[in-house]
Amino acid sequence: MTEKKNTNIILFSGDYDKTMAAFIIANGAAAYDHEVTIFATFWGLNAFRKDEQVPVKKDFLEKMFGKMMPQGADKMGLSKMNFAGMGSKMIKHVMKKHNAVPLPDLIDMAKEQDVKLVACTMTMDLLGLQKEELIDGLEYAGVAAYLADAEDGNVNLFI
Amino acid sequence: MTEKKNTNIILFSGDYDKTMAAFIIANGAAAYDHEVTIFATFWGLNAFRKDEQVPVKKDFLEKMFGKMMPQGADKMGLSKMNFAGMGSKMIKHVMKKHNAVPLPDLIDMAKEQDVKLVACTMTMDLLGLQKEELIDGLEYAGVAAYLADAEDGNVNLFI
Amino acid sequence: MTEKKNTNIILFSGDYDKTMAAFIIANGAAAYDHEVTIFATFWGLNAFRKDEQVPVKKDFLEKMFGKMMPQGADKMGLSKMNFAGMGSKMIKHVMKKHNAVPLPDLIDMAKEQDVKLVACTMTMDLLGLQKEELIDGLEYAGVAAYLADAEDGNVNLFI
Repeated sequence: MTEKKNTNIILFSGDYDKTMAAFIIANGAAAYDHEVTIFATFWGLNAFRKDEQVPVKKDFLEKMFGKMMPQGADKMGLSKMNFAGMGSKMIKHVMKKHNAVPLPDLIDMAKEQDVKLVACTMTMDLLGLQKEELIDGLEYAGVAAYLADAEDGNVNLFI
Repeated sequence: MTEKKNTNIILFSGDYDKTMAAFIIANGAAAYDHEVTIFATFWGLNAFRKDEQVPVKKDFLEKMFGKMMPQGADKMGLSKMNFAGMGSKMIKHVMKKHNAVPLPDLIDMAKEQDVKLVACTMTMDLLGLQKEELIDGLEYAGVAAYLADAEDGNVNLFI
Repeated sequence: MTEKKNTNIILFSGDYDKTMAAFIIANGAAAYDHEVTIFATFWGLNAFRKDEQVPVKKDFLEKMFGKMMPQGADKMGLSKMNFAGMGSKMIKHVMKKHNAVPLPDLIDMAKEQDVKLVACTMTMDLLGLQKEELIDGLEYAGVAAYLADAEDGNVNLFI
């Protein structure tokens, strides 16, 4: 067991704003020398999709989920005041104005700071998402791996 | 105080997907020999409603809440892409295909593993839910009981 | 480092019901002699807006956000069954009937119990909210301050 502090975030919701909050906390904790894990499950996994179409074999429902869910972090909507994408555009606009780091860059920063990014394999099965469709640098695991990290965690959050 | 690890989940949201996440984590933690508590409050309490109508005396607003809220875990919608119940049907369909355990069975598993299921009494008062309308095997308590468990918890989550 | 137990709540969502849950937990924890912090970020910050219009200089988008977001805790909607404000009225009605403490009073109680209320400065920048528009008695800080509190926390929640 390590002496390092430990932050574990379950990223469940596929919203731009909540995912941003998750990565701001993760990057902050990593900067304070925590070991940090983001365990992406359900809609949260959309944050780790590549933003292009990847040709993989899918059945009908998997194709439908694939089409309907946001393809990558930048395409996600807001949890509130999304107004069919308008709100999300507004937020990105003000973020740019205030030189705030956009979400895809927050994810890159997390990787550079060795935040462990985990894709929930059960969700991948359910929603028919395949490794080829997800960004590089992920680990693949289930709830057991999450619990092993979290039970010694200092900061555990469900976002 | 026990030497056992301790997982406490506040189940606030009455969504099928989030409730499923709560019970997958709870069952996983119980399998790892944690003491696990799910404290259901607000809409989360709907997961513990019986799926039939129970004849109890209610005033007008209580009847309305009773009608409008999902009657039991299996009737809850998704937090995203619910499309008036379509999304929830799709998820159940793919879950069946992948032999994933449906939510009502996850709740039964939790009971068998001695996960403590607590119904928030303040919410029962507010929404006019009575013990007769809730599934068997629950404990009844308020925020004080939650805090007593959580302050020594290893994994505390608000879902 | 103090011997006191420590509860830290990130208040992200600007919903009446979730904010109520946050303050009920916070007040409970304070009553049990925890050190309690509520760190309000994103939509959660709306809980700390004054309920009147405050004349401050804003650009166009900041004015739009200001208009569209709920002006203070009492104006927030429900996370579920809001029905354009109807649900939120219904909840307030039953709360009154059951002598439950309304949200603005829960916030006052938190202040009286020395719950530390923190406004996320990054969010204030993004949404164009200024100190003059927020209630008295707040502290102003960023994610670093949150992490400093949370890493020694007993109960950490993201609401």
